[in-house]
Amino acid sequence: MSSTEARRSIATVCLSGTLEDKLTAAARAGFDGVEIFENDLVASSWSAKEISEHCADLGLSIDLYQPFRDFEAVPPAVLARNLRRAELKFDVMEQLGADTMLVCSSVSPDAVDDDELAAEQLRLLAERADARGLRIAYEALAWGRFVNTYEHSWRIVRRAAHPALGLCLDSFHILSRGSDPAAIRTIPGEKLFFLQLADAPRLQMDVLQWSRHHRLFPGQGAFDLTTFTGHVLAAGYRGPLSLEVFNDVFRQADPAPAAVDAMRSLLALQESLGVADLPAAPELAGHAFVELAADDVAESELAAALRGLGFAETGHHRSKPVRLWQQGDARILLNRTEPGPSGSASVGAVAVESADPVGSARRAQRLLAPILPRSHRADEADLSAVAAPDGTSVFFCRTGAETGDSWLGDFTVTDEAGPGAGVTGIDHLALTQPFDHFDEAALFYRAVLGLEPEPVTEFAAPFGLVRSRTVASGRVRITLESALLRRGEWAPGVREPQRVAFTTADALASASRMRELGAPLLDIPGNYYDDLDARLAPDPELLTALRQQSVLYDRDEHGELLHFFTVVLGGRVFFEVVQRIGGYAGDGAANSPIRMAAHRRQREARGTSA
Amino acid sequence: MSSTEARRSIATVCLSGTLEDKLTAAARAGFDGVEIFENDLVASSWSAKEISEHCADLGLSIDLYQPFRDFEAVPPAVLARNLRRAELKFDVMEQLGADTMLVCSSVSPDAVDDDELAAEQLRLLAERADARGLRIAYEALAWGRFVNTYEHSWRIVRRAAHPALGLCLDSFHILSRGSDPAAIRTIPGEKLFFLQLADAPRLQMDVLQWSRHHRLFPGQGAFDLTTFTGHVLAAGYRGPLSLEVFNDVFRQADPAPAAVDAMRSLLALQESLGVADLPAAPELAGHAFVELAADDVAESELAAALRGLGFAETGHHRSKPVRLWQQGDARILLNRTEPGPSGSASVGAVAVESADPVGSARRAQRLLAPILPRSHRADEADLSAVAAPDGTSVFFCRTGAETGDSWLGDFTVTDEAGPGAGVTGIDHLALTQPFDHFDEAALFYRAVLGLEPEPVTEFAAPFGLVRSRTVASGRVRITLESALLRRGEWAPGVREPQRVAFTTADALASASRMRELGAPLLDIPGNYYDDLDARLAPDPELLTALRQQSVLYDRDEHGELLHFFTVVLGGRVFFEVVQRIGGYAGDGAANSPIRMAAHRRQREARGTSA
Repeated sequence: MSSTEARRSIATVCLSGTLEDKLTAAARAGFDGVEIFENDLVASSWSAKEISEHCADLGLSIDLYQPFRDFEAVPPAVLARNLRRAELKFDVMEQLGADTMLVCSSVSPDAVDDDELAAEQLRLLAERADARGLRIAYEALAWGRFVNTYEHSWRIVRRAAHPALGLCLDSFHILSRGSDPAAIRTIPGEKLFFLQLADAPRLQMDVLQWSRHHRLFPGQGAFDLTTFTGHVLAAGYRGPLSLEVFNDVFRQADPAPAAVDAMRSLLALQESLGVADLPAAPELAGHAFVELAADDVAESELAAALRGLGFAETGHHRSKPVRLWQQGDARILLNRTEPGPSGSASVGAVAVESADPVGSARRAQRLLAPILPRSHRADEADLSAVAAPDGTSVFFCRTGAETGDSWLGDFTVTDEAGPGAGVTGIDHLALTQPFDHFDEAALFYRAVLGLEPEPVTEFAAPFGLVRSRTVASGRVRITLESALLRRGEWAPGVREPQRVAFTTADALASASRMRELGAPLLDIPGNYYDDLDARLAPDPELLTALRQQSVLYDRDEHGELLHFFTVVLGGRVFFEVVQRIGGYAGDGAANSPIRMAAHRRQREARGTSA
Repeated sequence: MSSTEARRSIATVCLSGTLEDKLTAAARAGFDGVEIFENDLVASSWSAKEISEHCADLGLSIDLYQPFRDFEAVPPAVLARNLRRAELKFDVMEQLGADTMLVCSSVSPDAVDDDELAAEQLRLLAERADARGLRIAYEALAWGRFVNTYEHSWRIVRRAAHPALGLCLDSFHILSRGSDPAAIRTIPGEKLFFLQLADAPRLQMDVLQWSRHHRLFPGQGAFDLTTFTGHVLAAGYRGPLSLEVFNDVFRQADPAPAAVDAMRSLLALQESLGVADLPAAPELAGHAFVELAADDVAESELAAALRGLGFAETGHHRSKPVRLWQQGDARILLNRTEPGPSGSASVGAVAVESADPVGSARRAQRLLAPILPRSHRADEADLSAVAAPDGTSVFFCRTGAETGDSWLGDFTVTDEAGPGAGVTGIDHLALTQPFDHFDEAALFYRAVLGLEPEPVTEFAAPFGLVRSRTVASGRVRITLESALLRRGEWAPGVREPQRVAFTTADALASASRMRELGAPLLDIPGNYYDDLDARLAPDPELLTALRQQSVLYDRDEHGELLHFFTVVLGGRVFFEVVQRIGGYAGDGAANSPIRMAAHRRQREARGTSA
């Protein structure tokens, strides 16, 4: 961390587990401090003193104790009870070594709508805190009974006029209400005691439920946190950037990768603010290759399918059991692995063409992507690779570089001429993500590779809803897919299969040629074409040809898509061939349920015949 | 089905899987008919004709083809396209043998706000339908662009005045908007072409999202479907009662139990309307016993714990490896099973005292609860038992009946006198439910046993949110708990442990006595008592005693709760002892996260020492 960068903190409520689990995960991900959520402390078997010592051992400061609620603007008897409660929490804070207590604006039925009274009682609390070397950060909850905007909380703090009373700003509470954050610049920096950051998707729902269940780390949602945080820093805030994210999925996910995801979100935010010292993301020109890991049974199946799609085996690796299959600029590496359960394949690696592979890897490492150790001979190219959240390897390479620098130099090239079927390159990949890693994956590809995320879409698939998000830049395009809910035993396959989509200039001609070559193409039922006729009324000749070739069709305001699929190969991979006409923007997600039902029938037919 | 009962149908969109899966599940659960959702048909490899034949084989009529959207109040060119689209769907319906098509009110940007035009164009559509022996059911979507109330859709249908045009009423669209359904009675019955039923929890969110993701089967949510359906029947509606439930969880759950759950919801609704011929639920007086299934290792652990809690082994079954442990009216059966992985126990059976065990079982069977075959000797009591959705056996019995009729007659009673520790009976059970079965379980206990469901609550537990709902009646009380999201590998144990809670009149005395007897009680950390002091400020002497005995405390507007726990025994069961003071209503759920964190520490401590 450079000395000009802000400190980075995380609230324990962001992570799953007991307090012990959370602190360990936060420290390992490189956080400087934590906000300790009251419930985590109360359930801990460590005393406040022991927690303080443990945090010190881990190199974590305790930046905030939270939350303390429903304090201000109450009748005298309630005030007396609240002050007693506060003093007992001050005892805890002294033991913790935490100097700032968060006080959320009241939602209590005891409170009254009286700014004067609120200011007076908060001043009293600040005096008590001050006497013990502590301070109070007052925060307007978006659903506070009387105080629910930062402007209102600032009026009360200003009126109270005590040096130990300042504001806590929380991006969710401000941006969820659509408040303009620009006026934050008018607040003196020394009155900004604390900054909590959370992103969120735009949802039309009760703001409390939205806040408690659907917050996200910065860069994963729809809020403009760069502008927001820019205002807070411009006002002179010098405290930590601290994450406070309530999220149902993160609450039950392994805290170790969740803490890394959280830290990555702050690093990317700091970069967008121009206050992080990260190497820029080198330009990516396209997909270099896709590596499929397959045991011998699955490799035969994949090789036969590629031959049917018009590919040729054009090379083999000089020291590893890896074969190169190629057609146009589409390159598939088949990497033979130890035998799996019954012929299993998966996408092992995604390789992108980088203008500066070493620079790409350096940036990835700074953004906490695990660097993969590569075993290679002295005369082989040193491919830079990192692991994506789902375990897929991501290679940065330059196929066109001088021999010796290009990964192609490691291959002995055979001169087999393929039959050809019109494939010119790789259009996109679709990688199914584990349930807990969907938002993390989008942020990973955005921050580490510099890809742009498109909006999240959802569709109803035969075995449950599927969420989909494409991250893309130029000719690199990766679609992330995940079940909306973690699947149980009923759904066939916990994870839907992955796909590699190839580009063609003429889908109907390619499909026809591939059928001649014996490609295992997926049959699409007649009902689909009857419905297509009713919905989009394509030209009757085109409709007949689509139906004959089992080619699917979609249309948007920019253009058209023709596409078709193979059956599932090696249990978890299939190929797609895509023709884009005009500026068609999507991936034909509307047709995914049709494809999924057809794949299910294929699996069942095999299950029956097996 | 008696001849006066309405036919029961279900929309295919309620269930997971392909169309084939859905039809099979609906038929097996006893539905008379189905609504076929367009997407299910389009993805099917069966032609419409084959679907029709398949449904006939399964004894299912096809009551509705749905949905057809965005038809009415459009410019002439769009109308021509829409009529072409409709004629193609009429072709499909002829093949299907379905005579009614659902047309939802338009959300299209092409539509205009003109009731006259809407009526005119719908009349045109009805004429086309009529010419083919079909009819059109027009439905106001709650988010329809111009038509979004049933009163408005009825004005348009009345104005169109065509015998082949009528209304489809959907309880969600009407009740979600807070419309008064009483005016439905003023609509002539012959103009009510179709009735779709869905319940839902009260959520403050966008109505479209609420409808698409969170609908429930009748009786599982907050809508008064009895009154609603009563109005529709009073108007003279004679079509099927048909379920149309979009729910994220049901969409990915096994369709076989989901269809049974759906059918049970309709049977219970019909009972509440007085149009179902079900035997009434006999009165339940309390818990008769709880049977814990345990292998020999776990049985020793449980027996030692029960002895520590003051129980005595007072009998053994005459022909089975089952031992009876008793204290006051609390009875636990330990049923020795084959050895599990490493000493495993679970709640095998829940037994309730029924005024009429045979009547209870007969009702359960009519409500599709699987009757469990019992092996018993000729001279043993024939216990009536059914299986709950999570597989737990539910016994109906009369402990106080004449010997020979009481299950106690099957036991040889020893005269061991237990040490006693103040336990007087069973207060409640908490049964953790599989993720997919939470709503089904609440409906099961309500409909089958006649228990009253309390509101659903949620709390943040260390490894994710937990949803909880108690079903109770008199002294029978069962708390259903489930993770809000299906847990992954991180959370310890896919299912939280189950508990049996005993009643005491003096928790502190019981805890003290049980410690003397060597009960394996759970230690509660000091932080909890510091926080309790700050929050509720109990009398200092009480606080000291609670802290000393690791007894937890809660308070509501009716009274107080003192309670404490054993460690987890046999991997999945623990005991609780509960003292209720005054009218305290809950189960101390606020303390559950504390207990869960303490249980986690216990598991970890064991893991380390093992």
